[in-house]
Amino acid sequence: MQLSLTTFSFPLPLLATATEAADSSMVLAAVLLSLVVIYLASKVGGELSNRIGLPPVLGELVAGVVVGVSGLHLLVFPEGGANSSGSLIMTFLQTTAGLNPDAVDAVFAAQSEVLTILSELGVIVLLFEIGLESNIKDLMAVGIQATVVAFVGVVLPFAAGTAGLMALFNIPVVAAIFAGAALTATSIGITSKVLSELGRLNSKEGQIILGAAVIDDVLGIIVLAVVASLAKEGMVDLGKVVYLLISATSFLVGSIVLGKVFSNTFVAIAKKLKTRGELVIPAFTFSYVMAYLAAVIQLEAILGSFAAGLVLDETDERVQLQKQVIPVADLLVPIFFVTVGARTDLGVLNPAIPANREGLVMAIFLITVAILGKVATGLSVFGIPQINRLAIGVGMIPRGEVGLVFLGIGSSTGVLSKPLEAAIIMMVILTTFLAPPLLRFVFPEPTHTTADTENLIFDGSGSNSLVIGSSDAKVSSPDERE
Amino acid sequence: MQLSLTTFSFPLPLLATATEAADSSMVLAAVLLSLVVIYLASKVGGELSNRIGLPPVLGELVAGVVVGVSGLHLLVFPEGGANSSGSLIMTFLQTTAGLNPDAVDAVFAAQSEVLTILSELGVIVLLFEIGLESNIKDLMAVGIQATVVAFVGVVLPFAAGTAGLMALFNIPVVAAIFAGAALTATSIGITSKVLSELGRLNSKEGQIILGAAVIDDVLGIIVLAVVASLAKEGMVDLGKVVYLLISATSFLVGSIVLGKVFSNTFVAIAKKLKTRGELVIPAFTFSYVMAYLAAVIQLEAILGSFAAGLVLDETDERVQLQKQVIPVADLLVPIFFVTVGARTDLGVLNPAIPANREGLVMAIFLITVAILGKVATGLSVFGIPQINRLAIGVGMIPRGEVGLVFLGIGSSTGVLSKPLEAAIIMMVILTTFLAPPLLRFVFPEPTHTTADTENLIFDGSGSNSLVIGSSDAKVSSPDERE
Repeated sequence: MQLSLTTFSFPLPLLATATEAADSSMVLAAVLLSLVVIYLASKVGGELSNRIGLPPVLGELVAGVVVGVSGLHLLVFPEGGANSSGSLIMTFLQTTAGLNPDAVDAVFAAQSEVLTILSELGVIVLLFEIGLESNIKDLMAVGIQATVVAFVGVVLPFAAGTAGLMALFNIPVVAAIFAGAALTATSIGITSKVLSELGRLNSKEGQIILGAAVIDDVLGIIVLAVVASLAKEGMVDLGKVVYLLISATSFLVGSIVLGKVFSNTFVAIAKKLKTRGELVIPAFTFSYVMAYLAAVIQLEAILGSFAAGLVLDETDERVQLQKQVIPVADLLVPIFFVTVGARTDLGVLNPAIPANREGLVMAIFLITVAILGKVATGLSVFGIPQINRLAIGVGMIPRGEVGLVFLGIGSSTGVLSKPLEAAIIMMVILTTFLAPPLLRFVFPEPTHTTADTENLIFDGSGSNSLVIGSSDAKVSSPDERE
Repeated sequence: MQLSLTTFSFPLPLLATATEAADSSMVLAAVLLSLVVIYLASKVGGELSNRIGLPPVLGELVAGVVVGVSGLHLLVFPEGGANSSGSLIMTFLQTTAGLNPDAVDAVFAAQSEVLTILSELGVIVLLFEIGLESNIKDLMAVGIQATVVAFVGVVLPFAAGTAGLMALFNIPVVAAIFAGAALTATSIGITSKVLSELGRLNSKEGQIILGAAVIDDVLGIIVLAVVASLAKEGMVDLGKVVYLLISATSFLVGSIVLGKVFSNTFVAIAKKLKTRGELVIPAFTFSYVMAYLAAVIQLEAILGSFAAGLVLDETDERVQLQKQVIPVADLLVPIFFVTVGARTDLGVLNPAIPANREGLVMAIFLITVAILGKVATGLSVFGIPQINRLAIGVGMIPRGEVGLVFLGIGSSTGVLSKPLEAAIIMMVILTTFLAPPLLRFVFPEPTHTTADTENLIFDGSGSNSLVIGSSDAKVSSPDERE
């Protein structure tokens, strides 16, 4: 914990080395406690949600809200404006572990840093697993439909949102464009997790949603670049747009083409290795390299790990790898969803704050456009008879963290009014939390019985044994297909 | 990455929110790159070490040195006195990812923070796995021998080291006591990993080494408290010693007694859960709670996770849990060993620095005492005919990070001369790196053939299938028993 020594000028109670050791162990203690809170919340929330027939991930999000900045203040992050005194875990550490009050801020900052990266690794592993569960051929088969859905799903909410805000609320054009842009995003993390939990990832609908969400992410960064340069310089930086378009497309196409070559190399390497981790270490190395490349070309890191998963799904080691990724995902993914909930500040719904009251009408408008815009998008699917168009539209609803990125950039340029900011946050929260139950509703119940499920889980070899030979929802536990 | 905004006063190129987002993604990119370096190093080093018949973990340590502060500077940490300009990964991020030079220090600090905690989680998971592979009854059966080994292994090197330094080198008494104390530690992480890799964890020798290393850790914190209060106040704080003794003993005894009760509760909870992670989440929650408790009473966190593993080894879910912990350990444990190597500054061996030359003779003395003191300790084992006493002594040799904690406290009080500091560091490095090959040497070869091993690994179900029904070295891959 050199950090505290170089960046803070507290009166150090001991000399450097001793303090470093103490400090680093305090950060570890804080992270351990936070993980305990996250795991308890994820299991209590997930199980309760599952009992009432909703996707477990909804319970994890809600449980995150309960332990987070809007609830018990066990899990709070500095960017919510919270400081260390607002964190119950820090208070707990001071009473139980003798954490020095002078060192609290440094420990809090370091703990938040670590949890943020762990949650980002969580969603990277989630998309890697989703990629392993998906199949390039299936995705390509619905490629045209997914592309149409993605484009319509960007254009429709953007146009309706921007025009509506200008016409109905007299919002200035640049601000209206920002709000409209925030309506275009799709949170691939939440949507893919729910689909996986419902056992629908490999259905035609699931593949279209997933493909469209990926393309949406690419469109999203382009919309973002356009809108940001518009706000900053008053004009669109066409060179940047072209650069983004080319780099993103070559990344996606390149990873599929090169993947064919690499998947053979991967198997050859894994077969040569004779020490532990002979499969997971090469697989995660590849996943992290792809995530890094995606991040470098300004795509999201999760698109890289998704592509890595898709590539490795083509190899003979697929089944064995899927089995080994399960416990890693089980431990990392809840960190992402619980912290998304914990970061959600419901203060925006508090009617005592004037901006919230003013924002409420705009929020109702934005939420309507957000939901109807994407549901209508589902109708654009053509050429596949008897497809569940409603489910596809609903699958595109959650805006999640992507919507908040738009908001962040918009806020920083100062074009958004307080009520409009509040309205955008309300829209993001509601679409994120409504999507899981809505998706559950539009996908009809599979025909499992509970008795079956219990036998399958506790037959000694555990749920993992189900992975082999099951083509649908290969990695999700049987209970979650309920 | 609020951190950079509140603690650094760089001229921010954009407004707050936009910078935060960019910064956090840079930290993620830096962590992803570091993990790629760690995984490549661990596999190259581990495989090469395995090929020449040595434990893979030695290769991971050496590969860590190669990529670390003494080698390629890919993986450096601030506490080694390195700053961000010494990190090749930071340079790489500046050229490939457009990392802003003004933000480099903040990203470097955050990345080091995250990697430090990940490596600590790595050794926590390692000891959890070792606990799952061990058996309370087997440990208790050799409890008396382990206790004797631990006590002799603390007293002998301490007395010989302190007396020798005073008599031969005219070192002042307090400094000699510190150096003597640094000789008492045993690195449970390195020793248990090597034993596991050699398939000797569940041998009588392995159980005695493990038990003695645990007791050594308890004795170590007491010696540390005595020595530190001696240096600071010139007298021993007897109250603190008694407190440490009572809390440590009650923790170890309490976790075994309460474990009997809890293991039933654990199984009952796991059976009730119907969503993913029904086994790993409760298990890791328990492990982290125990690690936290151990850290709070000033024991090491790893003793807590070891106790948690021991307790859960008593449950019916043991086999299933061991299988699921394997990939998690495979991904986290190498982070620990590679960073231990990366932090090792071989500059201390550079004869161009006067303190190193002066320290060299003392280092030769300390290393001799460190090795002979522990080897002689093995002779104290009684009552078990035909036991490999040499192997037990050799198993206690590695000082690892524990020795460095003594050094840190010693340095901070200012009683250690530069040559003596250098000598202690040389002793820690050599005992740590010598122990794996020595252990390999004192444990005779098992009778596996290479052909067997390859068939076992790539029979479709992978190495994990071997877990069931194998009582010896249950969790290690067959190749590592070679």
